Amino acid sequence: MSTKVSPLAPKTIESLPAIAGVRFATHAAGIRYQGRDDVMVAEFAPGTTAGGVFTRSLTRSESVDRCALHREKGRARMLVVNSGNSNAFTGKKGVAFVDRTVAAAMTVAGCADHEVFMASTGTIGVVPPAEKIEAAIAAAPAKLKGDNINAAARAILTTDTFPKTAVRTATIDGTTVTIAGFCKGAGMIAPDMATMLAYVFTDAALDAAVVQNLVSGGAAVSFNCMTVDGDTSTSDTLMMFATGQANHAAVLHPHETRLNGFRAKVTDLMIDLARQVARDGEGAEKLVEIRVTGAANDRAARAIAMSIANSPLVKTAIAGEDANWGRVVMAVGKAGERADRDKLVIKMGGVTIARDGEAVEGYDETPVVQHMKGREILIETDVGVGDGAAKVWTCDLTHGYIDINGSYRT
Amino acid sequence: MSTKVSPLAPKTIESLPAIAGVRFATHAAGIRYQGRDDVMVAEFAPGTTAGGVFTRSLTRSESVDRCALHREKGRARMLVVNSGNSNAFTGKKGVAFVDRTVAAAMTVAGCADHEVFMASTGTIGVVPPAEKIEAAIAAAPAKLKGDNINAAARAILTTDTFPKTAVRTATIDGTTVTIAGFCKGAGMIAPDMATMLAYVFTDAALDAAVVQNLVSGGAAVSFNCMTVDGDTSTSDTLMMFATGQANHAAVLHPHETRLNGFRAKVTDLMIDLARQVARDGEGAEKLVEIRVTGAANDRAARAIAMSIANSPLVKTAIAGEDANWGRVVMAVGKAGERADRDKLVIKMGGVTIARDGEAVEGYDETPVVQHMKGREILIETDVGVGDGAAKVWTCDLTHGYIDINGSYRT
Repeated sequence: MSTKVSPLAPKTIESLPAIAGVRFATHAAGIRYQGRDDVMVAEFAPGTTAGGVFTRSLTRSESVDRCALHREKGRARMLVVNSGNSNAFTGKKGVAFVDRTVAAAMTVAGCADHEVFMASTGTIGVVPPAEKIEAAIAAAPAKLKGDNINAAARAILTTDTFPKTAVRTATIDGTTVTIAGFCKGAGMIAPDMATMLAYVFTDAALDAAVVQNLVSGGAAVSFNCMTVDGDTSTSDTLMMFATGQANHAAVLHPHETRLNGFRAKVTDLMIDLARQVARDGEGAEKLVEIRVTGAANDRAARAIAMSIANSPLVKTAIAGEDANWGRVVMAVGKAGERADRDKLVIKMGGVTIARDGEAVEGYDETPVVQHMKGREILIETDVGVGDGAAKVWTCDLTHGYIDINGSYRT
Repeated sequence: MSTKVSPLAPKTIESLPAIAGVRFATHAAGIRYQGRDDVMVAEFAPGTTAGGVFTRSLTRSESVDRCALHREKGRARMLVVNSGNSNAFTGKKGVAFVDRTVAAAMTVAGCADHEVFMASTGTIGVVPPAEKIEAAIAAAPAKLKGDNINAAARAILTTDTFPKTAVRTATIDGTTVTIAGFCKGAGMIAPDMATMLAYVFTDAALDAAVVQNLVSGGAAVSFNCMTVDGDTSTSDTLMMFATGQANHAAVLHPHETRLNGFRAKVTDLMIDLARQVARDGEGAEKLVEIRVTGAANDRAARAIAMSIANSPLVKTAIAGEDANWGRVVMAVGKAGERADRDKLVIKMGGVTIARDGEAVEGYDETPVVQHMKGREILIETDVGVGDGAAKVWTCDLTHGYIDINGSYRT
């Protein structure tokens, strides 16, 4: 973890409560970092269901491949995550590493192989030392505690400047359930520290299909609507675990109405975590929210919003505190989605700067200039062809990003 | 034009010869720049054929829309280009500006509207002053001269640090013909200076369908294989004009074999110009060539190569002289095209760094470190699934890019 905290970090890091049915152990294995924990082991109560979404990268790691395979069964007893080295592009050695991790976890938890999940985040192309991970897993039983969830949130960090945590409560059938989540990530892929990893835990009783539905639906409006640099990690993972320890009848179908309040809170928590990642974007000085309306459909709106969010020219303009709407026009145009040039509306900080395909003559620049100097920037555009809408988060592109990513790997 | 010339600029700027059938006039209209010519007018001999490809941006300018419309007829008598203001996102005022430009050119050349082409490059959202362009067109006849081609190449520059010129000769039926081209562009869209513009002139006698075929085919392996920041201008234009002044029977069909030598030279000239644009990329310190082989097909290979070329993490690593092959793996993976993770080969400076899905243990780093310190960087990858190949050019991402694009528009 970096010593200089992002200027966009939350004032206080939310402390996570223990979740019934999940216990955590952390370990200082010395894989790459010294003087800090770099392995976390989570043990789930029998009956815990699991769901997840994984990177669409076609060069994704063996660890991700295995998680995607295990996820199909929807059950979890163990999760093992290390920081320091990722297990991406490691060939047969990477396969052997995953085999050993799974075997060690099965022994400790007394579970089936498909109940073990894992992730490794750090330098690509370097296999984490299997014996260190095995030792961490073997040492876990003596340390496992629900309260260690906050230590676990820190153990998985790499170039992050602060731990990202969020907690929500909801009720299902009148029973209060808790949702706690944490994640890591500072670039889509940080300097050789691949990966955005996010884990959400709840004591709710949910069928695995319900968990999967909540994860897929939540990801679509949270982590999949957030970008630092448009680069996709080979290990990106979002998983959710439901221990079923809360005292309500299990939810068996994703569309049961008694799930509605819970679903809203899960989505809200995921958006909270995703925004924290954007706040910790490498070199970030400003958090940027981009809202697109009037697109052909929601998918098209998201594509346009991501085109704006990933444009180096838009991002450098924001770093320069410049309300450069011409670059927003450019990014709308290159997105490849339908947009009516002559109806385009662009607002910054709530002020309409362009309308009906041309600049608004004599608009009041003062509030816009003031807005651009702030830490949170809002860009809105209506592209004038339909009802599609999307909201996306990113950060600015600064000298800090170049410094962090342009330095040698020594 | 900037005063500090790119460190990647060619040692000498190639001086262009006059092309029979084209005469140029340049004019200091004072649209935005002072003390330099900012309008160029080209007049073509009757019978000149034309072809072009234009930005696929959906917010492209009215000038581009009009050129695309006129291009369908395949005839040209006049080309009018100004730097300073672009005519993008200018609404009805932009339409009126194009109408006035076309009318003024028709009067001077005594031609039809569809024989007039134009482009404006500069600040988006600000209409160039029509009266200044009209004055420049009216003044042109007294100045038109074939030798003014080099002055024309300079008049269209904006943030470029050097003019980009190239010349080739070829033979058709034993007759020597000349091809001269120039272009401008330093970012896909420079700081409010939209646009990559490229113009190619020849005295060869070619049917309009032949010209169009040469332009489309050439663009696919030159300008469409070059990127500075992945941002697409609202005005990008590549046009070619054939005056038919050379003494050979006109080439009527794109597939006539007597065109082969000429086609190769046209393509070579376009690649030369495209590489010069990458050499003048904003803040560029290194020219990067990316070669992809083993893709499912050529289109897929180009998509993978562009994914690598546009990755901020790859580009910052190159700026840091770091042979960071893990980021190349990441960029291959996110391209969304088929690749075999376990067959991937990555070379830098000709040295194989990774093979069969993992790092080559103990490869000789010395020549790679040396290569990364140079001005021209070569990255090769074979993705192991087919015969598709592509070659793409870009530049590194440096503090200079942030400085240029993050500054206020004042």
